[in-house]
Amino acid sequence: MTRKELISIIHKKKSFLCIGLDTEIEKLPPHLLREEDPVFEFNKQIIDATIDYAVAYKPNLAFYESTGLKGWISLEKTISYLHMKKDRVFLIADAKRGDIGNTSRQYAKAFFEILDVDGVTVAPYMGSDSVQPFLTYPGKWVVLLALTSNKGASDFQYLRHNDSYLFEEVLRTSSQWGSEENMMFVVGATQAAQLETIRGIVPGHFLLVPGVGAQGGSLQEVVRYGKNNDIGLLVNASRSIIFASSKEDFAERAADEALKMQKEMASLM
Amino acid sequence: MTRKELISIIHKKKSFLCIGLDTEIEKLPPHLLREEDPVFEFNKQIIDATIDYAVAYKPNLAFYESTGLKGWISLEKTISYLHMKKDRVFLIADAKRGDIGNTSRQYAKAFFEILDVDGVTVAPYMGSDSVQPFLTYPGKWVVLLALTSNKGASDFQYLRHNDSYLFEEVLRTSSQWGSEENMMFVVGATQAAQLETIRGIVPGHFLLVPGVGAQGGSLQEVVRYGKNNDIGLLVNASRSIIFASSKEDFAERAADEALKMQKEMASLM
Repeated sequence: MTRKELISIIHKKKSFLCIGLDTEIEKLPPHLLREEDPVFEFNKQIIDATIDYAVAYKPNLAFYESTGLKGWISLEKTISYLHMKKDRVFLIADAKRGDIGNTSRQYAKAFFEILDVDGVTVAPYMGSDSVQPFLTYPGKWVVLLALTSNKGASDFQYLRHNDSYLFEEVLRTSSQWGSEENMMFVVGATQAAQLETIRGIVPGHFLLVPGVGAQGGSLQEVVRYGKNNDIGLLVNASRSIIFASSKEDFAERAADEALKMQKEMASLM
Repeated sequence: MTRKELISIIHKKKSFLCIGLDTEIEKLPPHLLREEDPVFEFNKQIIDATIDYAVAYKPNLAFYESTGLKGWISLEKTISYLHMKKDRVFLIADAKRGDIGNTSRQYAKAFFEILDVDGVTVAPYMGSDSVQPFLTYPGKWVVLLALTSNKGASDFQYLRHNDSYLFEEVLRTSSQWGSEENMMFVVGATQAAQLETIRGIVPGHFLLVPGVGAQGGSLQEVVRYGKNNDIGLLVNASRSIIFASSKEDFAERAADEALKMQKEMASLM
């Protein structure tokens, strides 16, 4: 998906909501366990219930890999299902991959040719040649980790190099590898005050902001400091939406939560 | 596998060779393409031919994911095959995973429960809570990226923080998260001079050293600067062994290359 198409969907839906499909089998409503593929059935119902309010979906690979082959089948089915929807959305594989060049080329193939998602999250530690292979696919995106929303972010991302934190160096350096058309950055919303600094370094890029919802960040802060002229934001919520209820009404309750966020987003656009 | 068991295998085989199963389908000997599962068939023959000279195998996940479901089946079969061998080896999933705590728990489950490998490579960028979940399994190991052997390593791993490079900070900080019994570090051999510094920071830990072989590093340098009292090294070679020949004699030629390395290792121990 091109940047232009993404922006157009955002304006059409008045939403920049990304829904994280962190589909943990232990948290599924018990009645779904009777299904042949409970994970896919859950995702399907979540997608159907929320697609009017979301512009992006982000399956988190760990939750699929953790059940082995079965999980990969559920993941492939979920992605195919999203591809078949006439309502087009931006699809991110949250995989946090990254390796030396010839290996990253294989990961790029896995995500952009086999799974055919629009973007994949990539870790920056191994530098330019670990990211470049993902940037050779037209209409496909690298979603690079810059500042994450977890406690461990302080271990290395906040180390000082000259006058910058490491995550600022990552933004500055890596924004030269691609363009605003094929790179976005993961920026943890729980450090909303940092968004101003980040926008100073990458004013035009899209930011994928996790940590709103279950992780406690504020949407208003994120928009105040993070929005640019093209909106330039995808705000992710996972557990607060998909696990809003653990009962038979899980899809309706997910829709309620997604609608609530979409309305707040519309008012902030 | 415990550290003691690993050391014992190293002494028994007079080898600290790890063979990287970067099994790229395009590079397989053409006659194998007639098999039902060419990737598994290739791995099986490579394993049979080299297991006398190697103490560890390291399938690189990218090369399996890049063919989707089929690739995961080949991977699972390869790992099961290694589990069934009476000659026990250390098994590393080269996956370079790492995410926030609840997600890393799922990755740990994928690698240590479902695939049941001994170690998994993990990227350090997200800090302690992204690594901790992997350290809760007795006998299982985190193989943390510290210094990689690719060109892009210079982008961030060599950034200065006070008087240290970032990779030195990664070693110093992360070596506190686990112990010499459950953590090793990836250290790129092409920067052999750095091994002395690294041994100053982590004298006792095992190091996994890639970049010897196709990537051009020297085994003698690695041993001179990297060996400790327990050997403390796994030296990885992938393409130089498994793709030594692209013809029907690929397994014999792989055995020749592995034997050559094992002999050099024995002479350096």
